[in-house]
Amino acid sequence: MDRVEFRTCPERYRHWRLKVDGAVATLVMDVDEGGGLVPGYELKLNSYDLGVDIELYDAVQRLRFEHPEVRAVVLTGGKDKIFCAGANIRMLAASPHPWKVNFCKFTNETRNGMEDASAHSGQVYLAALNGTASGGGYELALACEHIMLVDDRSSVVSLPELPLLGVLPGTGGLTRVVDKRGVRRDLADVFATRPEGVGAAKAAAWGLVDEAVPRPRWEQTVAERAAELAESVTRADEGTHGIELTPLAKERTDTRITYRHVSALLDADQGTAEITVAGPEAPPNTASGPLFDADFWTLAVTRELDDLILDLRTNEPELGIWVLRTRGEAAHVLAHDALLLEHSDGWAAREIVLYLKRTLKRLDVTSRSIITLIEPGSCFAGSLFELVLAADRSFQLAGASEDFPDAEPAAVALGPMNSGPLPMGNGLTRLAARFHRDPAAFAAAEQAAGTALDAADAERLGLVTFAPDDIDWAEEVRLALEERAGFSPDALTGLEANHRFAGPETLETKIFGRLSAWQNWIFTRPNAAGPDGALRRFGTGRRADFDRKRV
Amino acid sequence: MDRVEFRTCPERYRHWRLKVDGAVATLVMDVDEGGGLVPGYELKLNSYDLGVDIELYDAVQRLRFEHPEVRAVVLTGGKDKIFCAGANIRMLAASPHPWKVNFCKFTNETRNGMEDASAHSGQVYLAALNGTASGGGYELALACEHIMLVDDRSSVVSLPELPLLGVLPGTGGLTRVVDKRGVRRDLADVFATRPEGVGAAKAAAWGLVDEAVPRPRWEQTVAERAAELAESVTRADEGTHGIELTPLAKERTDTRITYRHVSALLDADQGTAEITVAGPEAPPNTASGPLFDADFWTLAVTRELDDLILDLRTNEPELGIWVLRTRGEAAHVLAHDALLLEHSDGWAAREIVLYLKRTLKRLDVTSRSIITLIEPGSCFAGSLFELVLAADRSFQLAGASEDFPDAEPAAVALGPMNSGPLPMGNGLTRLAARFHRDPAAFAAAEQAAGTALDAADAERLGLVTFAPDDIDWAEEVRLALEERAGFSPDALTGLEANHRFAGPETLETKIFGRLSAWQNWIFTRPNAAGPDGALRRFGTGRRADFDRKRV
Repeated sequence: MDRVEFRTCPERYRHWRLKVDGAVATLVMDVDEGGGLVPGYELKLNSYDLGVDIELYDAVQRLRFEHPEVRAVVLTGGKDKIFCAGANIRMLAASPHPWKVNFCKFTNETRNGMEDASAHSGQVYLAALNGTASGGGYELALACEHIMLVDDRSSVVSLPELPLLGVLPGTGGLTRVVDKRGVRRDLADVFATRPEGVGAAKAAAWGLVDEAVPRPRWEQTVAERAAELAESVTRADEGTHGIELTPLAKERTDTRITYRHVSALLDADQGTAEITVAGPEAPPNTASGPLFDADFWTLAVTRELDDLILDLRTNEPELGIWVLRTRGEAAHVLAHDALLLEHSDGWAAREIVLYLKRTLKRLDVTSRSIITLIEPGSCFAGSLFELVLAADRSFQLAGASEDFPDAEPAAVALGPMNSGPLPMGNGLTRLAARFHRDPAAFAAAEQAAGTALDAADAERLGLVTFAPDDIDWAEEVRLALEERAGFSPDALTGLEANHRFAGPETLETKIFGRLSAWQNWIFTRPNAAGPDGALRRFGTGRRADFDRKRV
Repeated sequence: MDRVEFRTCPERYRHWRLKVDGAVATLVMDVDEGGGLVPGYELKLNSYDLGVDIELYDAVQRLRFEHPEVRAVVLTGGKDKIFCAGANIRMLAASPHPWKVNFCKFTNETRNGMEDASAHSGQVYLAALNGTASGGGYELALACEHIMLVDDRSSVVSLPELPLLGVLPGTGGLTRVVDKRGVRRDLADVFATRPEGVGAAKAAAWGLVDEAVPRPRWEQTVAERAAELAESVTRADEGTHGIELTPLAKERTDTRITYRHVSALLDADQGTAEITVAGPEAPPNTASGPLFDADFWTLAVTRELDDLILDLRTNEPELGIWVLRTRGEAAHVLAHDALLLEHSDGWAAREIVLYLKRTLKRLDVTSRSIITLIEPGSCFAGSLFELVLAADRSFQLAGASEDFPDAEPAAVALGPMNSGPLPMGNGLTRLAARFHRDPAAFAAAEQAAGTALDAADAERLGLVTFAPDDIDWAEEVRLALEERAGFSPDALTGLEANHRFAGPETLETKIFGRLSAWQNWIFTRPNAAGPDGALRRFGTGRRADFDRKRV
């Protein structure tokens, strides 16, 4: 199949309509049956595939940046009787394992992003279920702050994946039902094993939705609730202009992806993507006040990284190692960081930092080994030092190097961006997670903030893994990459998923760790995905043939 | 193969030697190469299989009950140069998926039990690694409070599973390295991808062990450290006699397992094990002071339940539903609970309660659906009510029933045992976990403690799932069992593993949730377990042939 492209814009949406009316936006899901991303299935009953979710992600992002006036987003359906039937089953049944896993990861991230908007951005999501929401349709609602279900004796919420398909809800459903909404575990068990679902009154009583609303009062009540939510938060001053997310310039071949600040060299033989991030060319221009537009370096580079991560994850599954480099001036990076934090009570700077936070979180749950190479001429400082902290291991070249004749020895620097604004999904900063059982080392690292740290300093402080000198550098890095490329890709995924999340767990890490790991296991089992499994037998009129052994 | 039997005693050990010298016990691992539980592999280099671990579990249990004088346990090896090479690779390679998963679960539980002894029982484990500890050998050490490694330029600790076998360490290794010992994540990454391991000095510097001890000072230092650990805790008064864990009477056929207080009816057609727990026949006899011996009801019933859980898990994988009933007097159960809690500052009562806690935790991580049926004549009160709270759903018969002509309507009761002494692995009581987002419901339930609750009361308080009356009872229960028996066993495992652990996560729940789930996934992947996978190719001289796609 063709490469999947994640860049889109409202003018090109086939499945969603975005309407903005003052402080309230309405996002209408109205899936084009014939608009599947891959041939072979029809998107009936407002079911979705990756293409539908790519549009949703774009809409969520544009609402945050282009619509500072919007404080409540009503998510509703454009069909009769059905809000959304969830992920398309024929698409799932026909998809190879890596596709299913990657699809679920992306949809999870989008839903987490909606929760992030409600929690941190003053843009609160309201699910207005004007018909049945089943499976992923109900999970989409679960990502909203408030769920309303029309009470009409036919509309239900349901999670029919287990009884009908032999798999789990793939987008955080089980976790959000018991952990976020606090539905009692035995009722959750009943709910997730009842394919016919639960109607409005009982759904409200069990805590599956917040409100059951009779059909005659539906539109008025939704409007009232949206207005209330919009009133409950603050966002930008009236009349504030949004930041237009102008089209992202990208060149893409089989071996290279190039944006303005970010580029990647794809090496199929080596199994690597060598990614280079360019720092800002100058300090931010504040002559006439800060200018947070789409060209502002932090926003531009974050958009590029975000697109690159999604592209590589989906289109280059055999590039198992991402090698990250930077080049530029650390001081310019830190100046951009400082300006953003100085203006963090304003919506625009806040949005940019929150977006960077979400993009870095994508790295944490990416099933690729991440190696940072800190060379002379690099600018791993502040926000860009998060790339080192997100890496599975890092190498900093000690001293001068013949390969970089004009550059000073490599240095790194911590800054305020490393101490709070960019937490991982587990709620800790990457620095705190790194030293979560070693408060002395954590304090020493924080004290070194603002100082340029050469390789010996950074190694001593535990901020980098290895600090080889010029003589050993090339050989040591080459061996590390070769060795890693020889390991089992699956085992590396499991290893990294465990090592990256030391410390506390949250709703988010439980979804990516516990829930997704079980789902991935089930996705490989013959009971679900085998020729006689439930996922493949669905709709054939034949029951699945299960191996009855409990594992 | 024959059924696996978990009952054993030191006289029958083939792989361990248990020596007690005052406050210090020494547990010497000295595996009999020819003593594998299943034909087809030799237990070389002190590698282990389920049979070796069954003996370890027995030893750990006996140390707690039969040796109140022991306050430090030295775990060491009986071979030259090697402490333990971990789980036997040929055994793993030849084992079907369910066996591997069940084996890892049991070994995990035993290691958690050692940590429980160190934390709560005043019996602290010391790993004296007198040679290389690799894979599961090092993971065994990780379960100890203090790890000493001989510094002799040849002994190492290592986790070679990923580079050599394409799987993860199966017994909590990754989690304990970063979460318990706080090893930095990048160093943990290096460690777990380096098959040759890490020698004593570096292992101590990285935090993988607590102490590197030169060979000449080895024995003296181990003895000193053991004495110090023993001094650091209190356990029982001097001269206290232990509780002998007398042989457990058990009758076992293909269709029935019978102990003194517990029995199970195995119904292969229905896919159920119908388990009945008999309450105490009388209040505890305290005429001449409390008598906490092996006949004391709580201890006896816990031992029986423990053995039954292990037997059913291992030998009856197709019985996917465990139906739990009780019969007896609630008052007698509560009287036994009260006596134990009254004497909880004494080692014996404390050990019994801790053992019950561990046994209930086994239920929480058991991959079977658990349904409790609360019928007239039952005694789901206090400690036995934990069975209801551990269940995926529960039915309480409302009112009188023709099927139980002589019994009062079914009632349940909460007691002090439900409010603290028996927490789940996530640190919450089952009652608190049930209502973790609903403090009002939690308070109402706690306030009802001590009251006999009929079906209507229990349902209203959210303590049971359904309360059908005599007319509906049989049909409703039958339908629930039939329906569940028709679902995908794998999907049920994933569902239950998520629903049962709402709320916080701990080292223990991370091991059973996040880590084990990833491991289970990897165990099903061709890259590990396929004919060309790393696990199967190990030792053949041929490299594994990997699908290089990262998932």
